[in-house]
Amino acid sequence: MGWEVVVRVRVWLLLTIAVVSRAESGPVAAIRAEMDKQVEAWNRGDVKAFMESYDRSDSILFVGRSVTRGYQPVLESYIKRYPTREHMGKLTFTDLEVTILSKEYAFVLGKFNLARTVAGGGDASGWFTLLFKKTGKAWKIVADHTS
Amino acid sequence: MGWEVVVRVRVWLLLTIAVVSRAESGPVAAIRAEMDKQVEAWNRGDVKAFMESYDRSDSILFVGRSVTRGYQPVLESYIKRYPTREHMGKLTFTDLEVTILSKEYAFVLGKFNLARTVAGGGDASGWFTLLFKKTGKAWKIVADHTS
Repeated sequence: MGWEVVVRVRVWLLLTIAVVSRAESGPVAAIRAEMDKQVEAWNRGDVKAFMESYDRSDSILFVGRSVTRGYQPVLESYIKRYPTREHMGKLTFTDLEVTILSKEYAFVLGKFNLARTVAGGGDASGWFTLLFKKTGKAWKIVADHTS
Repeated sequence: MGWEVVVRVRVWLLLTIAVVSRAESGPVAAIRAEMDKQVEAWNRGDVKAFMESYDRSDSILFVGRSVTRGYQPVLESYIKRYPTREHMGKLTFTDLEVTILSKEYAFVLGKFNLARTVAGGGDASGWFTLLFKKTGKAWKIVADHTS
């Protein structure tokens, strides 16, 4: 390659790295990373680690057919509803849209998909909306409405 | 009454008026008033007036069994689902909790209750979470998740 081509490739690489770095920082990326951690935790059967993406507060909300309030009750509700690895199945999140509302709050729309055996309850899916709050350096879920 | 009693009653009245005035202003009161207007519109069979509490935008979300996006599609979905006064029934909102997130956004948890004839589909109820945004002087719904 001539030196001009080499310089062009180097500049292109630097720009690419800069763009990728920017894409991987910021609140949207932090929230997506938090949700990736949830999926990994769920799929290794670790409900407690999955719950770590929720704010550890007595006021967090889980809304479904009923309303559950507080970290411990939400955790217990998950354990009750998904007592075994087979009931937990394999989780994926799709159709994620993260909207930053302010420095402190973000809104997320998404779909959960559970691949499960018939004994585990069969496949399941549904939409969720989440309200994330930045507490300290971390973004955590303060309200989860799943239907 | 002696003058002392009269003064006490007057002071009490002034304090009461001051407290009530304060309770009736502010974002929480504005949002509750908007939702009261929704209930009144619904119960006189006026779906278009009911929809005026949503932000008139192509990006508003209605999440239920599926996701509907945009003012006009959400309006059409309501009209399709509630074609007659009988299907609309009598609406009440209960268990309302308004949380102000910032000067621009607020989160609302609540329950809808529809009293209907059997022909209208029978009674129905469920939980909703709303994201309100202040656009200009008005608070309007930008996301509605009802299950």
